[in-house]
Amino acid sequence: LLLPAQTFIRTMSSSDGPTSPYTTLTISRPAESITHVQLHRPDKLNAMNKAFWREMVECFNEITEDKDCRVVVVSGAGKIFTAGIDLMDMANDILQPKGDDAARVSWNFRKFITKYQETFSVIEKCPKPVVVAVHGACIGGGVDLITACDIRLCTQDAWFQVKEVDVGLAADVGTLQRLPKVIGSRSLVNELALTARKMYADEAKSSGLVSRVFADKEAMMAGALEMAGEIAGRSPVAVQGTKINLIYSRDHSVDEGLHFMATWNMSMLQTEDLTKSAQAAIEKKSPKTAVFSKL
Amino acid sequence: LLLPAQTFIRTMSSSDGPTSPYTTLTISRPAESITHVQLHRPDKLNAMNKAFWREMVECFNEITEDKDCRVVVVSGAGKIFTAGIDLMDMANDILQPKGDDAARVSWNFRKFITKYQETFSVIEKCPKPVVVAVHGACIGGGVDLITACDIRLCTQDAWFQVKEVDVGLAADVGTLQRLPKVIGSRSLVNELALTARKMYADEAKSSGLVSRVFADKEAMMAGALEMAGEIAGRSPVAVQGTKINLIYSRDHSVDEGLHFMATWNMSMLQTEDLTKSAQAAIEKKSPKTAVFSKL
Amino acid sequence: LLLPAQTFIRTMSSSDGPTSPYTTLTISRPAESITHVQLHRPDKLNAMNKAFWREMVECFNEITEDKDCRVVVVSGAGKIFTAGIDLMDMANDILQPKGDDAARVSWNFRKFITKYQETFSVIEKCPKPVVVAVHGACIGGGVDLITACDIRLCTQDAWFQVKEVDVGLAADVGTLQRLPKVIGSRSLVNELALTARKMYADEAKSSGLVSRVFADKEAMMAGALEMAGEIAGRSPVAVQGTKINLIYSRDHSVDEGLHFMATWNMSMLQTEDLTKSAQAAIEKKSPKTAVFSKL
Amino acid sequence: LLLPAQTFIRTMSSSDGPTSPYTTLTISRPAESITHVQLHRPDKLNAMNKAFWREMVECFNEITEDKDCRVVVVSGAGKIFTAGIDLMDMANDILQPKGDDAARVSWNFRKFITKYQETFSVIEKCPKPVVVAVHGACIGGGVDLITACDIRLCTQDAWFQVKEVDVGLAADVGTLQRLPKVIGSRSLVNELALTARKMYADEAKSSGLVSRVFADKEAMMAGALEMAGEIAGRSPVAVQGTKINLIYSRDHSVDEGLHFMATWNMSMLQTEDLTKSAQAAIEKKSPKTAVFSKL
Amino acid sequence: LLLPAQTFIRTMSSSDGPTSPYTTLTISRPAESITHVQLHRPDKLNAMNKAFWREMVECFNEITEDKDCRVVVVSGAGKIFTAGIDLMDMANDILQPKGDDAARVSWNFRKFITKYQETFSVIEKCPKPVVVAVHGACIGGGVDLITACDIRLCTQDAWFQVKEVDVGLAADVGTLQRLPKVIGSRSLVNELALTARKMYADEAKSSGLVSRVFADKEAMMAGALEMAGEIAGRSPVAVQGTKINLIYSRDHSVDEGLHFMATWNMSMLQTEDLTKSAQAAIEKKSPKTAVFSKL
Amino acid sequence: LLLPAQTFIRTMSSSDGPTSPYTTLTISRPAESITHVQLHRPDKLNAMNKAFWREMVECFNEITEDKDCRVVVVSGAGKIFTAGIDLMDMANDILQPKGDDAARVSWNFRKFITKYQETFSVIEKCPKPVVVAVHGACIGGGVDLITACDIRLCTQDAWFQVKEVDVGLAADVGTLQRLPKVIGSRSLVNELALTARKMYADEAKSSGLVSRVFADKEAMMAGALEMAGEIAGRSPVAVQGTKINLIYSRDHSVDEGLHFMATWNMSMLQTEDLTKSAQAAIEKKSPKTAVFSKL
Repeated sequence: LLLPAQTFIRTMSSSDGPTSPYTTLTISRPAESITHVQLHRPDKLNAMNKAFWREMVECFNEITEDKDCRVVVVSGAGKIFTAGIDLMDMANDILQPKGDDAARVSWNFRKFITKYQETFSVIEKCPKPVVVAVHGACIGGGVDLITACDIRLCTQDAWFQVKEVDVGLAADVGTLQRLPKVIGSRSLVNELALTARKMYADEAKSSGLVSRVFADKEAMMAGALEMAGEIAGRSPVAVQGTKINLIYSRDHSVDEGLHFMATWNMSMLQTEDLTKSAQAAIEKKSPKTAVFSKL
Repeated sequence: LLLPAQTFIRTMSSSDGPTSPYTTLTISRPAESITHVQLHRPDKLNAMNKAFWREMVECFNEITEDKDCRVVVVSGAGKIFTAGIDLMDMANDILQPKGDDAARVSWNFRKFITKYQETFSVIEKCPKPVVVAVHGACIGGGVDLITACDIRLCTQDAWFQVKEVDVGLAADVGTLQRLPKVIGSRSLVNELALTARKMYADEAKSSGLVSRVFADKEAMMAGALEMAGEIAGRSPVAVQGTKINLIYSRDHSVDEGLHFMATWNMSMLQTEDLTKSAQAAIEKKSPKTAVFSKL
Repeated sequence: LLLPAQTFIRTMSSSDGPTSPYTTLTISRPAESITHVQLHRPDKLNAMNKAFWREMVECFNEITEDKDCRVVVVSGAGKIFTAGIDLMDMANDILQPKGDDAARVSWNFRKFITKYQETFSVIEKCPKPVVVAVHGACIGGGVDLITACDIRLCTQDAWFQVKEVDVGLAADVGTLQRLPKVIGSRSLVNELALTARKMYADEAKSSGLVSRVFADKEAMMAGALEMAGEIAGRSPVAVQGTKINLIYSRDHSVDEGLHFMATWNMSMLQTEDLTKSAQAAIEKKSPKTAVFSKL
Repeated sequence: LLLPAQTFIRTMSSSDGPTSPYTTLTISRPAESITHVQLHRPDKLNAMNKAFWREMVECFNEITEDKDCRVVVVSGAGKIFTAGIDLMDMANDILQPKGDDAARVSWNFRKFITKYQETFSVIEKCPKPVVVAVHGACIGGGVDLITACDIRLCTQDAWFQVKEVDVGLAADVGTLQRLPKVIGSRSLVNELALTARKMYADEAKSSGLVSRVFADKEAMMAGALEMAGEIAGRSPVAVQGTKINLIYSRDHSVDEGLHFMATWNMSMLQTEDLTKSAQAAIEKKSPKTAVFSKL
Repeated sequence: LLLPAQTFIRTMSSSDGPTSPYTTLTISRPAESITHVQLHRPDKLNAMNKAFWREMVECFNEITEDKDCRVVVVSGAGKIFTAGIDLMDMANDILQPKGDDAARVSWNFRKFITKYQETFSVIEKCPKPVVVAVHGACIGGGVDLITACDIRLCTQDAWFQVKEVDVGLAADVGTLQRLPKVIGSRSLVNELALTARKMYADEAKSSGLVSRVFADKEAMMAGALEMAGEIAGRSPVAVQGTKINLIYSRDHSVDEGLHFMATWNMSMLQTEDLTKSAQAAIEKKSPKTAVFSKL
Repeated sequence: LLLPAQTFIRTMSSSDGPTSPYTTLTISRPAESITHVQLHRPDKLNAMNKAFWREMVECFNEITEDKDCRVVVVSGAGKIFTAGIDLMDMANDILQPKGDDAARVSWNFRKFITKYQETFSVIEKCPKPVVVAVHGACIGGGVDLITACDIRLCTQDAWFQVKEVDVGLAADVGTLQRLPKVIGSRSLVNELALTARKMYADEAKSSGLVSRVFADKEAMMAGALEMAGEIAGRSPVAVQGTKINLIYSRDHSVDEGLHFMATWNMSMLQTEDLTKSAQAAIEKKSPKTAVFSKL
């Protein structure tokens, strides 16, 4: 079913620029059912400009509706994953706020922040698993982005930085909300957010921010695609139900989570995927040999 | 107070079969105040059949009422801890659901799932700490089971697998709800649940799924009993209050947890165990030398 | 801006006794904007007596109002960090409770516990980050204390012990509520709380309880002050907003956290610190070179 | 479909005593799909003795499983609805508690209260709507009972009394939790619970405790059966889904409620009852003329 | 500031048909800062067809952004307010669901329901108060609509019907979630939802569903506009902050509500509206005489 | 036990001014175990000045500790209950806020609002029931105050006004949080808060804001004292436990409420008040004849 990893890589890196109509993202299909989203402003270190914030939402809304996509891989083109917010492009909105008095300026800031929070929440609302592959550096807004993804991988040379206190603000598009639920050491979370120090790949692995570290970007992308292939080959009813319930569980008590799960699966267990998967199991085949209807 | 570890092991392994009226569980008392529950269908790799689901509830309900039991150790007989759900035995219920239309089938599935969720929730509702010792393999439903236990140990050769996506369904009897609250890396939890890959003992330890790894089953059982003995020797008012409040805290904010704790301890501090323990401390004795009333 | 580390240490260790009006705490200012709070009953192993519980509240209330303080470092004088509750001093209140019947005794215990819970909750309510540096031992009430701090450091020879079950009670001033949200392995949390076993520095680090381990106390204090300096040099609007939102996030769902964050930052983004920090960034200077108004 | 009201009444009042194996309840089927549960210790004013608490649970568990029952009517035999707890029968358990110290007595009381709370929670967990018809008086435990029912009716001569403060305790089997969510005036709820004053039918109606008042018991029972008939004639998928979601909504935010509702109805909309009901509507017939499968 | 009521009415009734691009809604501005949204399919009794569901979202999104609008009035053209869902127009979607198996049908239904829930949630998310004026009848989906509005008025001849159980389904676009939080008698809510009986104006008033009843539609529209004028004349910072916090409070505990309120008002109190309003008060003028900036 | 009502009144009205050290409150003991708190700035219509906000906290903290007080009655001296915030006295703090930039002004406002919210939250945290008796008018901050009380009474000539939108702000010391949980009609709550219209005694009664209306102040005070006497005569363990659990229930789901209740009563049922009350019941005496220990 899957092409050899080398081929994927080639497919993935063959993109010469953003995929129209996007100006900051390159979209490709390296293998069946897998969508690859590449941050693509390499000359700007994939800094997040106004266009990026809008395009991420459009892109993930499309992916959510795309029945041919079952898994998403996110990576960055060029030297690093992302340098975070493009302050030059966005200085206007942040440093010259609009409004007749402080209350009205606040009102407008709130709409602005809420809109930007939505950008990464769409990743979470998209029921398809998102694997993010980080190389080089992942700074500021980049951490907001990756904590909204489901599985995090990185290269040995990667580092991560919660940069916001350095520019005089508390991180407000997701890092402070999601990072503590993503990694297990609260002391470390607080240290990173309060001192803006860099965290390197080894600590990222031991703290649980990433679940795998690869030698270099090529190896990582091959690994990311292999993992995406594993997921894409399984029942989308099972996979997407799993993502939805994992996120639900994070935000609820165990009792609430179980109650929701039972209500969810009362219909989802009626899928034919169950029979198909069971059949494969009986025949000692991989579940990936079964052919599942689109979802 | 405690027998030498060797004796425990012998006591524990001397069981030749399930303890009547159970057909899938062997119950024994390897040492004072300790109940040992063994999954006991070794020829079926301790797969969970219909009888098992019912018997676990009965067994833990009994344990909850048994004033002579203060700690529980759970392990598996034979080659592995458990192969998870016995699909053959349960295929009927899952693959040939009952109901006149899809809504009624859903209704019945919901009752079915809720009942099976209860099976492991009884472990959590039982106020006595439950130490689970895993050897060989712990697959599918086995992960649901162990995440409902309080302390997890394993052997060096053990592996764990969230198997459900392989059979076309989202895990619905506890894994998706409890696993993320049990281990610290969300990236890892998602990876395990979405790819169904195996996790070995070392990763289980470093990720925090288990708190100790032992060379082999014999060493693990000795360790489990020693730990159980440590717990059993302390005030049951303190120990069981600790379990109840740890579970409450998991599902509530810190403020709510503190409020509940104060309301709990306002009566529990009136126990004579406090004086007895204090007395032991003054006399430089272990708290295990005190004799506490049954609870 | 900062003095050489050696100087700090000297400043910090020059205190010969508690700072009036306190009898159990020594307060100093080792560097600009940094307050050092030292538990100071070295002859009693910094055991927490009645005076201590009251003084911690007064001390942190003062710190909260002190516009010249931006970060707090907490450490212990003498051989160990703290031996926990001073049972001798407090035996009266606990072992000879007041009240005409069991209900009235409970009523009084509840007020008593709630008051003591407040002692450490003030650390959390104080918006200024608190770095705690542990050497030697941190026992019982000490664990309650440090889990309410933001960043935890320790020396190589430090050990930690959730001691309460040994004295016949469930820990009720914060450990059971905060520890599971502080470290990533639930199995470990349960083991520590149910068996009262010691945990040493290495396990404290790998489990995430502390984020850094230092060779000895001198190195740790230098490290703590360096870290405190990093924090103190940044915008207090950013830093204190970060602490407040990190704590809010712990106790709420991600959606709730984002909603609160947007409402928080709608005004906080109007700070001049943002422009000052941006200016520093453009000039390639450290954010610590900017001069921020007091908060 | 329905018998004339007079016939119902006769059927209902023809019961000469409790229905075996119950000793405190009379169960009958006054009309198709309707189960009538009568509190039946008329000589003791239907006071709730130990047997009653156990039998209510058994009775509602049976009703939950009884596919021929779609609605339940609860009423009381004899002069009044119920005098509440039978203190004589239960004095032992309450006034002579068991346990070696105050903590252990508390432990046992907690189990006792939790068990008794369950008695009325089964009414809420039963997905079939429960209409309760109160005549004469409804005292103490009676208020706990009726607030767990879905629809409350009463006769003109009925009165209600939250009696617990009169016997030295805070109502602990449901009144304090449910009454404030049942009626709209918090000032009134507090007044009733704190002063134990009687509330008569008119105030019960205007405050919303009951939704209808009838002239006498005969009229009320006819009205209750007519209302039960209206409910019993409609799709059980619709009716029971409505009850489950109304209770879920009470305990959750609107957003949570909507989320759960969508997950619930995603399968329930697949019922054939929808087509049958739509067909009846097109033919200008009552939905009650459709024949729905059992649930 | 306000025109005489008669003029409003004329302005409001002069609309001859839907306002392009809408096909089911007529939008007008009867007075400064007031937007009037009229359900306008009078020949179909304002039944909610597919176009309606889409247009309500678009319409309220526009209103949210329209700085010239401060209050919204919603009413229905023709003989009644609305007959609810247009089953003919929507039968396709509901009765002939799409999907390869029951799980996939469920998946699609969930998206469908969620989209329709959004239709009325936009009313709640719009920070501008919405006054709804009901005449004739308000059936099924109409109740979902009005419970999402802020203030409900009706004519003496109006009636309300939670119709869903009559067509074989549990109300899933808001009634079951919002109605119990809108009116004070739970017994009545349950009765209405489980029996689908009609509720007339007097009961709607005494139960709190509407806060005012008018003799006829003309009087009601005059009253609605007068009330809208009262609101429109006050500070939009105060008014819209009030709506946002009233909705927040409904879904949170009092403590959470207070915490959010303080965080909200910390910026909103910096509005110049406060000074302007205070000035008016000192000069003994109505707050409506002040001129407030747009929001 | 109780004095004739006339005597109470005299006792209550004999106060010639504030009770030292208070300058805005008169405190008296009209009957055993009853504390009467009178807002006492009659020449300023009991407007709430800075002193008042501070004194209310001190006063209720004292009452909480006063074992001789079991119930509190709050009323206003002079022509009306209260005109709300004393804008003249507080203009400084609100209209000339302090802080170097908008963020720092916000920071200070938040502390200010939080402090003022505390003023009325102390009423709720005081476990002793508070009956409030309103005559004349209750405006703005007065509504915040009375919604934090437990039982509300008023005279026939009383009116209530949520005044805040008139002065350009959203009510932020409790009204928006508590009023919707106090009265049953959401449409009415929204109308009152958004239009600032007056509500008179009859509507206050029918909507459930007050539970009783009296002809005049004298009758109301007699009624308030009689009701306070009823409460004061009952077991303080039962009464105060009832208040605490009623407030807990308001902010939690029914399941959470029951769980907390069981944990509360496990100790409180061990009170001797239970036996004393039971004894009184057997002897057919009023529970008020029993003599209960202080709490």
